[in-house]
Amino acid sequence: MLIGPNLEDKTLVSSVTGKDHLGQINEINVIEERPLSIYLNSQEIVTAMTIGDHPKYLALGFLKNQKLIKEDEKITGIDFDDETRTVVVRTENESNYEQKIKKKIRTSGCAVGTVFGDMMESVEEIILPESKIKISWLYDLAKEISQINSLYLEVGAIHGTVLCLENKPLIYMEDVGRHNAVDKVAGWLFSTKTNPEDKILYTTGRLTSEMVVKCANMGIPTLVSRSGFTAWGVELAKLTNMTLIGRLRGKRFVCLSGENRLIYDAI
Amino acid sequence: MLIGPNLEDKTLVSSVTGKDHLGQINEINVIEERPLSIYLNSQEIVTAMTIGDHPKYLALGFLKNQKLIKEDEKITGIDFDDETRTVVVRTENESNYEQKIKKKIRTSGCAVGTVFGDMMESVEEIILPESKIKISWLYDLAKEISQINSLYLEVGAIHGTVLCLENKPLIYMEDVGRHNAVDKVAGWLFSTKTNPEDKILYTTGRLTSEMVVKCANMGIPTLVSRSGFTAWGVELAKLTNMTLIGRLRGKRFVCLSGENRLIYDAI
Repeated sequence: MLIGPNLEDKTLVSSVTGKDHLGQINEINVIEERPLSIYLNSQEIVTAMTIGDHPKYLALGFLKNQKLIKEDEKITGIDFDDETRTVVVRTENESNYEQKIKKKIRTSGCAVGTVFGDMMESVEEIILPESKIKISWLYDLAKEISQINSLYLEVGAIHGTVLCLENKPLIYMEDVGRHNAVDKVAGWLFSTKTNPEDKILYTTGRLTSEMVVKCANMGIPTLVSRSGFTAWGVELAKLTNMTLIGRLRGKRFVCLSGENRLIYDAI
Repeated sequence: MLIGPNLEDKTLVSSVTGKDHLGQINEINVIEERPLSIYLNSQEIVTAMTIGDHPKYLALGFLKNQKLIKEDEKITGIDFDDETRTVVVRTENESNYEQKIKKKIRTSGCAVGTVFGDMMESVEEIILPESKIKISWLYDLAKEISQINSLYLEVGAIHGTVLCLENKPLIYMEDVGRHNAVDKVAGWLFSTKTNPEDKILYTTGRLTSEMVVKCANMGIPTLVSRSGFTAWGVELAKLTNMTLIGRLRGKRFVCLSGENRLIYDAI
């Protein structure tokens, strides 16, 4: 793996004392959760609740996945200030998107709906490339990812997202918000200019519309989860030509979009 | 139960065809996920992704939990339009909150951070009442809730929130967003003017800061989950005098705030 779960950073976990079912006093470790404010140039965009690692990848991935930074826009710098818990992503040109946000917010009241609207508009233009998937890769990934030592295994209450090539995990990010874990992977993908077209995105979270849209915006043609689907998630996967595989546990799974691309090499 | 999982409404689930791990073609049911725009008088506040049931409870609960409607403010009407998927909550007075939002959005860029900020400010004033909890109630609730026929058991990929009195589930709401399930319960609680002080809130979701803040704003002194904790969730529970119980599975649990209120009647 190029980047694995962040087990070395002791600021991500804190110890709390409580009582268990037997009335015994126990010290248990819990995952941290902190606000992080993301700016695009001079414009504050969102405050995300995050465990706190990889703030620059998170900010860049979020802004790119929300289509707030255009594809060809040059990033001139990303600054993180630990004390104020603020990331500022700077671009060469103040983009239309910043004016658009300002304008839209005044009319529609909240960036949640608005930004989501933009994200949805652009997804309709995406046609992901055909990409064959061997089911032996899925089995290898499910097994290997479940055995990698992670914050999830250590303290729980956290989601993971793994960028994979064939049957190999490359980048494994975790966060209290499953969308944050995806955005951190996206930040890495965009800043290293890695080719997304031969990759598989694995998530522990459910396959909702937001998940599918983020994966499509990253240009990754295959999205895999051990959790289930929503109807709109499936619809958007079909729309963008994505292979969508859920409920992957052991040797079982369900594929609800792109099923003609599966190669049954391990029945 | 007064309100149970919404199994009668067939519009909440749709059927999709795909392939399974054996290459067999299967029809499976997946949960719906739809946008719902919430207005406070003439101001659009947010677009929530929801399964779509109880839109009026969801809107009212969201606005009250976010402290966008003051405690003593009179609700003059709640209108839902199915075609545009819009709920408008009307109050007697256009509240300061609406002006505050307008102003804040212009300066800070996004209501997510802003609204969250307001929510956090007000939570610091809350001191929940002392409320004893018998652990036999927890065991009864865990068992009974897991056996209630729900959308979760039918199609998965969904969270549940249950308002309980002692060992009895009263209101069981489900949604793709765990915060939506809580807000729907809150909408019922506020519109029926039900006393929250003797209630227990059970959720299938994790005990994050957002969850604890919503529960505190509802005035419910005990929050229980089968999932884990975040550090900030625990801190906010201690701050508001909440009893916080997580990892409730079978006869096991961990209590990380208010542990002195537990009555060990069923070891």
